[in-house]
Amino acid sequence: MELGIVGLGRMGGNIALRLMDAGHRIVAHDVLAEARARLAAAGAEPAESLAALVAGLAAPRTVWVMLPAGAVTETAIAALADLLSPGDCIIDGGNTFYKDDIRRAATLQARGLDYVDVGTSGGVWGRERGYCMMIGGPAQTVNRLDGLFAALAPGAGDVPRTPGREGRDPRAEQGYLHTGPAGSGHFVKMIHNGIEYGLMQAFAEGFDILANKNTPALPEAERYDLNVADIAEVWRRGSVVSSWLLDLAAIALAGNESLSDYEGSVADSGEGRWTVFAAIEEAVSADVLSAALYARFRSRRDHTFGERLLSAMRYQFGGHEEQGSGH
Amino acid sequence: MELGIVGLGRMGGNIALRLMDAGHRIVAHDVLAEARARLAAAGAEPAESLAALVAGLAAPRTVWVMLPAGAVTETAIAALADLLSPGDCIIDGGNTFYKDDIRRAATLQARGLDYVDVGTSGGVWGRERGYCMMIGGPAQTVNRLDGLFAALAPGAGDVPRTPGREGRDPRAEQGYLHTGPAGSGHFVKMIHNGIEYGLMQAFAEGFDILANKNTPALPEAERYDLNVADIAEVWRRGSVVSSWLLDLAAIALAGNESLSDYEGSVADSGEGRWTVFAAIEEAVSADVLSAALYARFRSRRDHTFGERLLSAMRYQFGGHEEQGSGH
Amino acid sequence: MELGIVGLGRMGGNIALRLMDAGHRIVAHDVLAEARARLAAAGAEPAESLAALVAGLAAPRTVWVMLPAGAVTETAIAALADLLSPGDCIIDGGNTFYKDDIRRAATLQARGLDYVDVGTSGGVWGRERGYCMMIGGPAQTVNRLDGLFAALAPGAGDVPRTPGREGRDPRAEQGYLHTGPAGSGHFVKMIHNGIEYGLMQAFAEGFDILANKNTPALPEAERYDLNVADIAEVWRRGSVVSSWLLDLAAIALAGNESLSDYEGSVADSGEGRWTVFAAIEEAVSADVLSAALYARFRSRRDHTFGERLLSAMRYQFGGHEEQGSGH
Amino acid sequence: MELGIVGLGRMGGNIALRLMDAGHRIVAHDVLAEARARLAAAGAEPAESLAALVAGLAAPRTVWVMLPAGAVTETAIAALADLLSPGDCIIDGGNTFYKDDIRRAATLQARGLDYVDVGTSGGVWGRERGYCMMIGGPAQTVNRLDGLFAALAPGAGDVPRTPGREGRDPRAEQGYLHTGPAGSGHFVKMIHNGIEYGLMQAFAEGFDILANKNTPALPEAERYDLNVADIAEVWRRGSVVSSWLLDLAAIALAGNESLSDYEGSVADSGEGRWTVFAAIEEAVSADVLSAALYARFRSRRDHTFGERLLSAMRYQFGGHEEQGSGH
Repeated sequence: MELGIVGLGRMGGNIALRLMDAGHRIVAHDVLAEARARLAAAGAEPAESLAALVAGLAAPRTVWVMLPAGAVTETAIAALADLLSPGDCIIDGGNTFYKDDIRRAATLQARGLDYVDVGTSGGVWGRERGYCMMIGGPAQTVNRLDGLFAALAPGAGDVPRTPGREGRDPRAEQGYLHTGPAGSGHFVKMIHNGIEYGLMQAFAEGFDILANKNTPALPEAERYDLNVADIAEVWRRGSVVSSWLLDLAAIALAGNESLSDYEGSVADSGEGRWTVFAAIEEAVSADVLSAALYARFRSRRDHTFGERLLSAMRYQFGGHEEQGSGH
Repeated sequence: MELGIVGLGRMGGNIALRLMDAGHRIVAHDVLAEARARLAAAGAEPAESLAALVAGLAAPRTVWVMLPAGAVTETAIAALADLLSPGDCIIDGGNTFYKDDIRRAATLQARGLDYVDVGTSGGVWGRERGYCMMIGGPAQTVNRLDGLFAALAPGAGDVPRTPGREGRDPRAEQGYLHTGPAGSGHFVKMIHNGIEYGLMQAFAEGFDILANKNTPALPEAERYDLNVADIAEVWRRGSVVSSWLLDLAAIALAGNESLSDYEGSVADSGEGRWTVFAAIEEAVSADVLSAALYARFRSRRDHTFGERLLSAMRYQFGGHEEQGSGH
Repeated sequence: MELGIVGLGRMGGNIALRLMDAGHRIVAHDVLAEARARLAAAGAEPAESLAALVAGLAAPRTVWVMLPAGAVTETAIAALADLLSPGDCIIDGGNTFYKDDIRRAATLQARGLDYVDVGTSGGVWGRERGYCMMIGGPAQTVNRLDGLFAALAPGAGDVPRTPGREGRDPRAEQGYLHTGPAGSGHFVKMIHNGIEYGLMQAFAEGFDILANKNTPALPEAERYDLNVADIAEVWRRGSVVSSWLLDLAAIALAGNESLSDYEGSVADSGEGRWTVFAAIEEAVSADVLSAALYARFRSRRDHTFGERLLSAMRYQFGGHEEQGSGH
Repeated sequence: MELGIVGLGRMGGNIALRLMDAGHRIVAHDVLAEARARLAAAGAEPAESLAALVAGLAAPRTVWVMLPAGAVTETAIAALADLLSPGDCIIDGGNTFYKDDIRRAATLQARGLDYVDVGTSGGVWGRERGYCMMIGGPAQTVNRLDGLFAALAPGAGDVPRTPGREGRDPRAEQGYLHTGPAGSGHFVKMIHNGIEYGLMQAFAEGFDILANKNTPALPEAERYDLNVADIAEVWRRGSVVSSWLLDLAAIALAGNESLSDYEGSVADSGEGRWTVFAAIEEAVSADVLSAALYARFRSRRDHTFGERLLSAMRYQFGGHEEQGSGH
C-alpha cells in the first residue's frame, strides 16, 4: 500500500520507517528540508509541499498527519482538504482533542472526504516495539487501511494470550483496534494517557515513601536506608505491580539511584486534563487521575498563593510565625 | 473557685487572666521566672515548683496543665500525680493524642485521681472572645468544675440561637461541652482541627484560582485582574462561605493583597495527621481532610523524589527532556 | 429607580420584594400567571410578555433576568435584545457560565446594549439577610445601577469591620462588588460555589468520623458515642471552624441528630464543575475542590463499574472472593 | 536444604510445593489434619504439633510461619520461640506490620534466635510464576537461606534485563532481595501493596469513564458505545499502561464485559492503610494512594453520614429538596 505522511518528527519519521520496513510506499512531507532528506535517504519519496505530496499519491489517497495537536494540525488538515478529492482519506495520528475530531469529520464528510483519528501509543520505543493504536472512523475505511495498521502494530509477540477472547475482535491481540466512530480513537487514547498519569503517580508516591524512610523525622529504630534501584528491579519479577512503567523506572534508577539528574518539574499534556473534563461531564469520580494531574501542576510551581494564604490565616488565628518570614 | 495552672505561655497565661477576670483564684507555675512574675503582677499567686503549687491549693485540688503535647506534658502529669491526693483532679488542656488520655485516665484513676481532657479552641483571640472547649472525663468531676468552664467559655454572645435545641445540653450554647469519657474531649478537638485544615485548604485553592485568573496561559479575553482583598470582604456578608476563617483571610488580604510577606511553607500539627488515622481506623473516606494535610506537606518541600521519578519515566518512554535538566 | 424582572421564582420573586421594600419600582414578568399575580399583590406591575415589560419601563431601561442558566436564559436574553434600545441594559443574575457572559456581552455591545452579570449568593435567606453580589460589566453601568445593588445587598450589618481596609472599595463592606469586565461577576461567584463545596465536604468528612467513632471495628476502649448535634453547636462559639455552614449544620442536627430524613444522594450544579475546569485551565492544583465534587458524584451512584473492576482484578490475582458474589 | 512450614493454606501450601519441586525437604504443620494430609501426599513430612515440627528438623532450624497477620501469627511465633534453640531462625512470610517485626526481632535476638521477615507477592499465581520476595533480617542469616529464596523466586525468566545494573545486587534480577534489617522486608512489601492500590484505582477510574461514555447525560453526538474488553486487550501490546494488572483486567473483561458477576464491594487489607500511615509519619504527600484506599472504603458503604449532612446543609441554605426524601 502507499501512504502520504505529513510531519516527519520523531513520531512521524519512525512511523514512516516502520511502514517502509513492511514494504509500504511512503510519500513524505515536512517543512524542514533536513527531515525530508533523512526520510528520503531511508527510502521515502520526499514531497516539498502538501500539493506535491497529494500529487505523488494515487486515488483513493490516504494522508497521515502527524503534527503537534492544535493550530498546526488544524491548518494542515484544512489545506489537505482543499487538495484532496472525494474518496480520499485524512488520518490524524496526533493527540487531537476528540471533540475536534467529531467536528472535523462532519466537515470533511460533507466534502466527500474520510477522516480517521488514530490514538498512537508507544513513544520512542514504537519503531522497534510497534505502536498500539486506537482507531476512530468509518468501519469501511478503517478496514481498507488494515494493512497499514497491521504493519505499524506490535503484533501478538510473546505476550500471553488472554483466555476467553474467542469470538472477540482479533485486531486487539495484534495491538490495534477500531474503537468506533470519529473521535473515539483519540478518546480512548486520551483515557489511556489519563490512566498513565495515575499509574505514574502511584509509583512516584510509593518510591517517595521508600526514599524518605531514612528521614530524621522518624524514630531511629524505624528508619531504613532502602535501595530503590534494587527494589524497582525485584518488583519486575512476579510482583503485582510489574508493568512497563516499572521497567522504565528500574532503568532510570539503575542509572542513577538518587535521580539527581532530574529536577522534578513535570510537564503535562492535554490528555491528562481532558480526561478529568470527560470524567466530570459524565459525573464519574476520578480522584486518582485528578490528583496525578495536580501533582504535576504543583511540581512546576515554587510556592502557591494558596499556600501563602494558609500561612496568613494561621498567623491570624494562632500567631503562628512562619519559619523565615517576617510573621 | 480556685485552680492551679501549670504552663503560663500564650494559652495558659491567657486562660489564667480570663479566669481571674471572672473572680477565680489562680495559683500559677511556669519554669520561667519571667512568666510567673507576669502572672503575679496580674493577680495570680506564683508557685516556684509543682510542689509549691499543690501546697497552695485546698483539697479537692484541680490543676490545669497547659504545656506542649508529648513528653513535656507527660512528665508534668506524672510529677503532679505523685504530689496530689485522692479526689484531686488533673486537667490536660493541651493538644494531647486522645489514646494517651485513655491510657493516662486509667493510670490516674487507679490512684484515686480524676483526669479531664479539654480540647481548647480559640488561639490568640481566646482571652477576648473566650475559649470553645470540648471536655472529656467523669461527669461528676466535669460538673463540679462547671464554674471554671463557664468562665472560660465565650458564652452565648450575640450568636443567633439554633432553633430546635430545646431539651438539649445548654452548655453547648455557652461554648463548652462535656463530650464523654476520657479522651473524648481531645478526640472532638482533633476532628475540629482536621475540619479546619479542610476549610482552610478550600479557601486556599479558591483564592489560588482567583489570583491566577490573569495568567498568560489563558486566552487574553478570558483573563481577569481580580482584587482578592475586596472579594474576601464581600463574601463576608450574606454569602454561603462566610466564616471566621474568611474573616481572617480578609484581614490578611486587606493588609497585603499579594501576601508577599509570607513564603507559603505551611506547618502542620498532630491533630491533622491523627484525624486521617482516625478516619482510616473507622474505614471512613476522608479525601478532603487528607488532601489538605498533603498540601501542607508538599508546601514544605522543594522538589520530591516522586516528581523526579515522574520526569525520569517520561524521559524513558517519550524522550521528554525536562526543562533545564541534562535530560 | 425602576427595574424589570424576568423570572419570578424563589430567587427572582424575593429580589423583587426586597427592592420594593426599598422603594424601587418593579415591572415583573413570568410565564406563569400565578407568579405574576403573587408579585402584583405585593406591589409590582405585572407584565404578560417581555414586550409588555419593556414597554412598561422608561429609557434607559434595565431588565434583570433571573432564570435557570442555559437555554432558557439564552432565549430570554436574545428576545429582550430585540425589544430593547441602545443604552438599555440586561442583567443576568442567574448562574451562567462566565464564558457565555463574555460572548454575550460582545454581541450585545455591538447592538449598543449593556450587559451586566451578577453572581448572587444568599439562597432562601436572601430576602431577609440580603444578597451578596459579585458584579461584572462596564463600570459606568454598574455605577448607574448602584442604588439597586445597594438595596439588595445585606449592608454592613453587625459584621465587625476588617481592619486595614481604609482606601479600598467601600461597596465590599456593604456586600456587593464590581469585580471587573463581563463575566467576572459570575466567575467570582463560581469560585465561591467551588469553595462552598470544599467547605461542606470538610464538615461532612469530619462529622462522618465523629458519627462512626462508635463502630464495632474499633477496640471497645476507643469507642465514643458522640452527640453530633451538641458538637456542632459548641463549635459555633469561639472555635476556628465557626461559619454559616456550621450554623446550618447545627440547625439540621438539632432537628434530627441522625439525619435519617435524608438519604445522602447529593446534587451538584455547574459551578462546582466549572471551578475544576478553571483550575485546570490555569494549571492550579485543586485537590480539595475536586474531591468535594467527586464525593457528590459518588453519592448518587450505587456501585460503579470501576469498583466492579477492582473486585474482578482482586479475584484474578488473589482469588479474593467478593462477599455475596459468585466469586 | 530443609524447612519447617507452619500454616498450609493457599500461600503456605504452595510455597511448600514449590520448594519440594526444587528438591528441598519440608516438615509441614497446620492445625487442620486435612491440610497436613494434602501436603504429606505431595511429599512433605507432616507434623501434628509445633513441637513435632521442631523435633523433625536439624539445628540450625528454620521455620517459615505463613499465617494470617495479627494474633494468630503472634501466638505461633511465641510458641515456636519457646521450642527452638539459639541459632535457629523464624521466618514470618505473612503480611505483618513492620513495627511488629522490629519489636519481635529484638525480643527473639535476646534469646539467640534469628528473625527474618519476608514480604511475599505473587498470590495464587505464585506456585507457577514464583514469588517475588522482599526480605528483612540479618545479612548472614539471609545469605545462609539463599537456596530457599532462590527456589521460591521467579528467576530471571524472559523478562528483559534492565541496562546499567552491572555491579548491583544480582538477587533482584532473580526476583528476591535482602532489603535491610528486621521489618524492612514487610515495609517494602507494604509499599508495594500501597502502589498496587493506586495502580488498580487508576485503571478503575479510567475504565469507569470509558464505560460511561454512552450516558444520556452527554450530548448524543459525543457518546460512544465502547468495547472495554477489546480496549483492555489492545492496551496490552505496546502501550504505556501495559502491566500485569491490565492483563488481569483483560481476562476478567474477556469473560464478562459488563462485570455483572461482581457487586463492587471492595475489601482492603492492612498494607494499604499502613502505607498511608507511613507517608504521614514521613510527611510525604500520598494523594493517589490515599484516594485509592478511600474509594474502597466508600465502595463498602451504602450512604454515609457525611452525604446526609451535605443534603441537610443544602436544604437549609437553598431549600434544595433531595430527590426521594421528605425534604
